[in-house]
Amino acid sequence: MLLPALVDVIDSNRDWIVFVGSAVVIAAICTLIAVATRGEPFRPSPRLGFLLVTVIWSTGSLIGTIPIYFALPQLGFAAALFESVSGLTTTGATTISGLDALPRGLLLWRSLLSFLGGIGIIGMALLIFPSLRVGGMALFHLESSDRSGKLLPRVSQLSAGIVGVYVSLTLLCAILYHVCGMPLFDAVNHAMSTLATGGFSTHDESLGFYQSDAILMVATVFMILGALPFVLYIRLFLPRRFQRWRDPQIGLFLVICLVLTLVLAATRIVINNVSIKEALISSAFNLVSVITTTGFVSEDFTLWSNAAIGIFFFAMFIGGCAGSTAGGIKVNRIIILYALVRANFRRVLRPHSVQRLKYGHDDISLETLQSVTIFIFLFFLSLLVGTTALSICGLDLLTAFSASLTAVGNVGPGFGQLIGPAGNFSFLPAPALWILSFMMLIGRLELVTVLVLLSPSFWRD
Amino acid sequence: MLLPALVDVIDSNRDWIVFVGSAVVIAAICTLIAVATRGEPFRPSPRLGFLLVTVIWSTGSLIGTIPIYFALPQLGFAAALFESVSGLTTTGATTISGLDALPRGLLLWRSLLSFLGGIGIIGMALLIFPSLRVGGMALFHLESSDRSGKLLPRVSQLSAGIVGVYVSLTLLCAILYHVCGMPLFDAVNHAMSTLATGGFSTHDESLGFYQSDAILMVATVFMILGALPFVLYIRLFLPRRFQRWRDPQIGLFLVICLVLTLVLAATRIVINNVSIKEALISSAFNLVSVITTTGFVSEDFTLWSNAAIGIFFFAMFIGGCAGSTAGGIKVNRIIILYALVRANFRRVLRPHSVQRLKYGHDDISLETLQSVTIFIFLFFLSLLVGTTALSICGLDLLTAFSASLTAVGNVGPGFGQLIGPAGNFSFLPAPALWILSFMMLIGRLELVTVLVLLSPSFWRD
Repeated sequence: MLLPALVDVIDSNRDWIVFVGSAVVIAAICTLIAVATRGEPFRPSPRLGFLLVTVIWSTGSLIGTIPIYFALPQLGFAAALFESVSGLTTTGATTISGLDALPRGLLLWRSLLSFLGGIGIIGMALLIFPSLRVGGMALFHLESSDRSGKLLPRVSQLSAGIVGVYVSLTLLCAILYHVCGMPLFDAVNHAMSTLATGGFSTHDESLGFYQSDAILMVATVFMILGALPFVLYIRLFLPRRFQRWRDPQIGLFLVICLVLTLVLAATRIVINNVSIKEALISSAFNLVSVITTTGFVSEDFTLWSNAAIGIFFFAMFIGGCAGSTAGGIKVNRIIILYALVRANFRRVLRPHSVQRLKYGHDDISLETLQSVTIFIFLFFLSLLVGTTALSICGLDLLTAFSASLTAVGNVGPGFGQLIGPAGNFSFLPAPALWILSFMMLIGRLELVTVLVLLSPSFWRD
Repeated sequence: MLLPALVDVIDSNRDWIVFVGSAVVIAAICTLIAVATRGEPFRPSPRLGFLLVTVIWSTGSLIGTIPIYFALPQLGFAAALFESVSGLTTTGATTISGLDALPRGLLLWRSLLSFLGGIGIIGMALLIFPSLRVGGMALFHLESSDRSGKLLPRVSQLSAGIVGVYVSLTLLCAILYHVCGMPLFDAVNHAMSTLATGGFSTHDESLGFYQSDAILMVATVFMILGALPFVLYIRLFLPRRFQRWRDPQIGLFLVICLVLTLVLAATRIVINNVSIKEALISSAFNLVSVITTTGFVSEDFTLWSNAAIGIFFFAMFIGGCAGSTAGGIKVNRIIILYALVRANFRRVLRPHSVQRLKYGHDDISLETLQSVTIFIFLFFLSLLVGTTALSICGLDLLTAFSASLTAVGNVGPGFGQLIGPAGNFSFLPAPALWILSFMMLIGRLELVTVLVLLSPSFWRD
């Protein structure tokens, strides 16, 4: 909070009081809690893990809300909370219109929320979700082969490595944005929300504001980098078995991006009659933005054609790679589901054959399989329940469904006039914003982590 | 085909030539095939099973198309095929407008397709799908406990019993419709498509044409009867273990119908200010029609409110009970998925505990579990791929998505102006009708049955 306060002081904007005030209050409360609970022994258990993860992200969202709410009281609390959750979960949907005229401190605060949310989720995916057995990420369980005393140094080295890569890539992205003509402040902000696959922009028109193909190309590359597993970038520092490990999700992810971009570009050329160059750049940028669940836009792509809308709709479900900042179903799960379907087809054809399910060269355990299927089921269930709940709040079906989808997949824009690429979530009623904030949070935390708290067996004995 | 021909002769309609001609040609072809393949030994295998089921339903659809195509050549082949598939799969979506003025022979032909499709799918669910290990219906595998020589007589007894119940219920329904004021011909047609949970009507306005609460109530009751497992009605003729067997899906199905009806009626009373009686009757009828995947409507319920649309959208996914004429995800699968989620939540909380999954009093086998999860995954995958394909045919997202949903779930109406309760599928382009015909077919045959034919391993060696 002191960073945006500093920017506000430089700009002589009175908002610095909000940031400093919030910082002081929150620091005081945290200190009190720390003192009050000092000396309590820490007894780790899955239950405590789920509770802690959910509480930390909820508290973080609330802390993020405070400066937004006080700096823009006209938004109302629900919209301020939505904005904060959207940042921390790297969704990128916004309830603020008039971003171009917003104080720079607040803009920086939004970008920082994305930035922190991005690194936060990588940490969770690598260090916490596997031990909670959530989302079928046991394959990425770094500690599993190593129960010796050397665990902790390795985790801290790993964390330092990932933070280093994340910060370096963000800086590199900011420099390239700046080189391509983006003002320095904008470049830093957009870089933070690019690597985080967040999607917050400093302009209502998002990256379309700059009318620059170079900027769109830089963004496309760095959104892809943000959606690849970060372990990839620090392979050499990992236990030996990871150094040679080839993760099949990377190849498939890149192929999906390429193929869908080409199909979309083809519709642009055939239906919209645009040049091949423009078709490729605008298709790659907007589509990669949706697949990586970033949510930047260069223009209102829902005006292109119904065919384009269908392709974007399909892309919204995919998501990036596990262990990245991206959301959605994610490519590792798609590979596992494909293996499952293949094995099932073979089994119904040859009932007595034995089918081994493979993820790359590794066997897929029954536990991973069940976690993945549970995730998929909860993903679609959340989508349906969310759609119905939003309809009851008065939203039309297209808005309700695409809002649910974009929230639970942490994408950003939806479809329809209200919340499409050219729209804004500020027009939604407060109950809908609460529901969507909840959905962004459960989507970000791999669904089970939060939903398990709602089950009676969590609270029993 | 001779029945509609007879009706046409009575009405002095020249269409009888179409029906008799089709009947003669098809009978000739079938005789030739039977003679040509006579004496060939029948070697049952899963592969042959899948191929046969798919070929039989496809051929049936083609046979159903012939009279429609020749009687209404202005429809075009795609629309005629769609109409036939919609009948046989008991979907009930129609491409024909001006039903009220249609020759009675053709109306009867449509109803007969629904009627035959309904009894056909019950037979498949009880006798064929379990041995193909499709859709997680092993629980309903009547032969599994009985490998003695007495299998065949029992199957034929069972089939006779079910056909008897199906015909009796249809007759009873027709009589009640007639008693409530529906002309006899209409009563017979509607009864056939009620018990089949089909949804074809003899009027463009569907059952709304009669403006009769009594008719809507009769329809509601018989749609529910059509969506319950037919084994229920002939329990006493079954092997002993079924006589005491309580199927948990029945209770849950009725509870779902009741709760959603009450919620929908509440929105009608609060938002639309209608009387309690009208709210209850219209909500129960239209909602049960969607849940049971029948597709009758009494009015355009998408005009009621966004909340109502959300509830209907949710209801579209549910479906009836396994072993009935209804489509959709089906309640038995919902129970199994719930058990799976519950077990998973308990396992992540207490990693070393052992979770047994129960369906009523029975254990759920791993095979059933995998079949169910595969079904759910393929259901949503078909929905996404179908939506994108239909978008590329030029449909808007709402129409494309709801058409996919209503087709793969064999419901009937979709959402949006084109294909909503007041709309008609005739406005869709021919490629979209082909896609939707395919989707109705795979939805009706529990997805795996058809999709397995598309896998390379089906055609290997």
